[in-house]
Amino acid sequence: MPEAQHSASSVDSPRPAVEKHRRHKPLRIALFGFGTVGSSVARILVESKPQELKLTHIFNRNVARKRVDWVPEGVVWSDDADAVLGSDADVIVELAGGLDPAGAWVRRALEAGKSVVTANKKLIAFHGVDLERLAEAKGGHLKYGAAVAGGIPVIPGLEQGLAGDHIVRIEGILNGTCNFILSQMQEGAEYAPVLATAQAKGYAEADPTEDVGGFDARAKLAILMRLAMRVEIDPEEIVPKPITTIAAVDFSYARDLGCTIRQVARAEHFGDRLAATVGPMLVDLRSPLAWSQGTENMVIVKGQYGGNVVFSGHGAGGHPTAVAVVSDLLAMAHGSRRVEVPSAPAKVGAEFEVPHYIRFLVADRPGIVAAITGALAEEQINIRAIVQKAGYPADALPFVVTVEPCKSSALQRALAKVREMDCMLVEPLDLQMLENGGE
Amino acid sequence: MPEAQHSASSVDSPRPAVEKHRRHKPLRIALFGFGTVGSSVARILVESKPQELKLTHIFNRNVARKRVDWVPEGVVWSDDADAVLGSDADVIVELAGGLDPAGAWVRRALEAGKSVVTANKKLIAFHGVDLERLAEAKGGHLKYGAAVAGGIPVIPGLEQGLAGDHIVRIEGILNGTCNFILSQMQEGAEYAPVLATAQAKGYAEADPTEDVGGFDARAKLAILMRLAMRVEIDPEEIVPKPITTIAAVDFSYARDLGCTIRQVARAEHFGDRLAATVGPMLVDLRSPLAWSQGTENMVIVKGQYGGNVVFSGHGAGGHPTAVAVVSDLLAMAHGSRRVEVPSAPAKVGAEFEVPHYIRFLVADRPGIVAAITGALAEEQINIRAIVQKAGYPADALPFVVTVEPCKSSALQRALAKVREMDCMLVEPLDLQMLENGGE
Repeated sequence: MPEAQHSASSVDSPRPAVEKHRRHKPLRIALFGFGTVGSSVARILVESKPQELKLTHIFNRNVARKRVDWVPEGVVWSDDADAVLGSDADVIVELAGGLDPAGAWVRRALEAGKSVVTANKKLIAFHGVDLERLAEAKGGHLKYGAAVAGGIPVIPGLEQGLAGDHIVRIEGILNGTCNFILSQMQEGAEYAPVLATAQAKGYAEADPTEDVGGFDARAKLAILMRLAMRVEIDPEEIVPKPITTIAAVDFSYARDLGCTIRQVARAEHFGDRLAATVGPMLVDLRSPLAWSQGTENMVIVKGQYGGNVVFSGHGAGGHPTAVAVVSDLLAMAHGSRRVEVPSAPAKVGAEFEVPHYIRFLVADRPGIVAAITGALAEEQINIRAIVQKAGYPADALPFVVTVEPCKSSALQRALAKVREMDCMLVEPLDLQMLENGGE
Repeated sequence: MPEAQHSASSVDSPRPAVEKHRRHKPLRIALFGFGTVGSSVARILVESKPQELKLTHIFNRNVARKRVDWVPEGVVWSDDADAVLGSDADVIVELAGGLDPAGAWVRRALEAGKSVVTANKKLIAFHGVDLERLAEAKGGHLKYGAAVAGGIPVIPGLEQGLAGDHIVRIEGILNGTCNFILSQMQEGAEYAPVLATAQAKGYAEADPTEDVGGFDARAKLAILMRLAMRVEIDPEEIVPKPITTIAAVDFSYARDLGCTIRQVARAEHFGDRLAATVGPMLVDLRSPLAWSQGTENMVIVKGQYGGNVVFSGHGAGGHPTAVAVVSDLLAMAHGSRRVEVPSAPAKVGAEFEVPHYIRFLVADRPGIVAAITGALAEEQINIRAIVQKAGYPADALPFVVTVEPCKSSALQRALAKVREMDCMLVEPLDLQMLENGGE
């Protein structure tokens, strides 16, 4: 069994770390999944030749079509998961994704005392706590630095570098697909053609729901909340808002308000209450959240003592994610252990009270503004501005109302009345406005 | 002796990490230095009460005047360094700074088998390699996450999160004092009054040479180069340029060029050759380097596989630096070990070839431009633009020449001829232009 699985200390052997691991055999690595990320991991291992790591197995369905000539001869190619799980590999690198069968593979590997490195945010978001306990009980390790913002060392940063702080807020741009779509739409395009471009470039799946619906970002937020805020939540307590209802006109109005639109995942402690949300939001053009372009990711954590820290870079893609996987493998080989932070189950019980942007699309007629303002007034929501740009037809007129900080639930009650009006051509679009993003 | 000093593995004890460290006694911490950072460390330990850490000693000269009532009663206050070094403290937290006597204290602590956490960039830049070897030989640990960009987890990010990549370039805004001065000057002020403001706010020392001369940033760059690029350099091979020669007029010209000015520390591998430099530079207003405001720090590393990663936040100040110290202490208590990256001695032998901005201040007379362009032509340096803004007096006329990418050494030879001209009122100011900062 590899050194990484035995970093328990023994009081009488203060032997220096470097000398020690050089004498040990390299960790034997089995890749589960040889797609973009898996082949990038293999590529880095082959090119960089870290002496601590040895690629021994590659598992993939129909593995024959995956075979490449640049992988060393001794590596076993297999489409038999059981055989690879039962092999002498020390670490399973799980890159298949999804809960099933990846979850079963990970569990079996950990039960056999092997260690696991995974990029599977869904598995870690829903079952990470259990899997970590299983790893501890069996003497293995579980690392998932690639699960959130793959190419950006947010997880080691939180575990190692900010463990001494008390993180009170997380704001993240955690989904590269959404950021690509929204930063392209910022230039004037509509959603559908940009999605098609994203699909053509391989940035979006044929069924993009997981990304554009906010489910991917939600899973990553749940992982960050556990590591940074030390709360274990049920990801399904957060109902994400999709970006699919954003139109080019919203970017035009946003710009007039000094903002742009990004898919943001946020969580914050308000005393002992916890708020968390995922969806498209207006962000100030001067805030760090507006810096992210294309498929970039960004995470901003606010510490009680250290203030804001911004991490930014390529969150996904084969090579950046593979760097995170190889870094996790090296950390295991060197016996590096995460700083264990106690986390506890928690409920998402609070709401953010922020200004909102509400865009209506109406067949114009007298009395619409009076009806909207009346519905808002009934919920004690104060209007900040009513904005209507020239140049749109009266039979499909977009206009915007911004309101002072209020709870989404109160606003939804007000909008429930408004949306029953005949003149509403589409559902009113309600977006939170992050005026102080990253401050 | 504490667990942190004995993370050597023993093959027959796969006991889970969490259970294990909970059974052990907390690490006993001695603070050397109770200034801004030291008292912030004590404050976090007292408020957060991490069970793994116990503050036992506080050393400071004339310690009586430092005593505060919120530190627990059992803590020993001392102005006797020998006594504290000889005590039962497990870890010395060195916050005195400078090479002497801090270096001697650190060495003695390590020789006694204790571990050390330090924020002392100068000590680590000049003696880090030796001190790490000493720590390894004696069974202790040396951590210095607070030495570079204190509140930003760059060092854990590099050691743990990017170990799997091959870092080819570092660009950093590593000195908060310079960034405060330059970002204030960006608003139109001159150097001297802004320095006075910085001194009044406690952002600059009475003698600011270490900061504004670039020596502080140079030490930090040397540390980052070792961790990220795995080269051990003599910091004195880098001759930093001071920011003291920058004037308000330079920000005015920079803005016309779509740029601002920042103190940047950069290093890059060109094949097996290494370039490194520290000084004020023109940075594109759209580049991440222009985002940093006030005393913020930023580090951008470019990996062969993962591309650019940006870290940003509060680089200095009591609380952010203290977070880095406490995080290092927690990592020690949890037996976390850095990923050992092999580094090797290297020479800074290459030069950057980038465009330059050259500002002249002259008593205007015919023939000046002809003389300058002639001197540049002799060195095969191509002029990109000659810019002269209206509104300045002819007897003290600032004007700017920008040139295509060239080596600083060639430009210096050309400028050596120019600066002999009678009409030159001050030394020509030559700044590198980072057109692709962070890209």
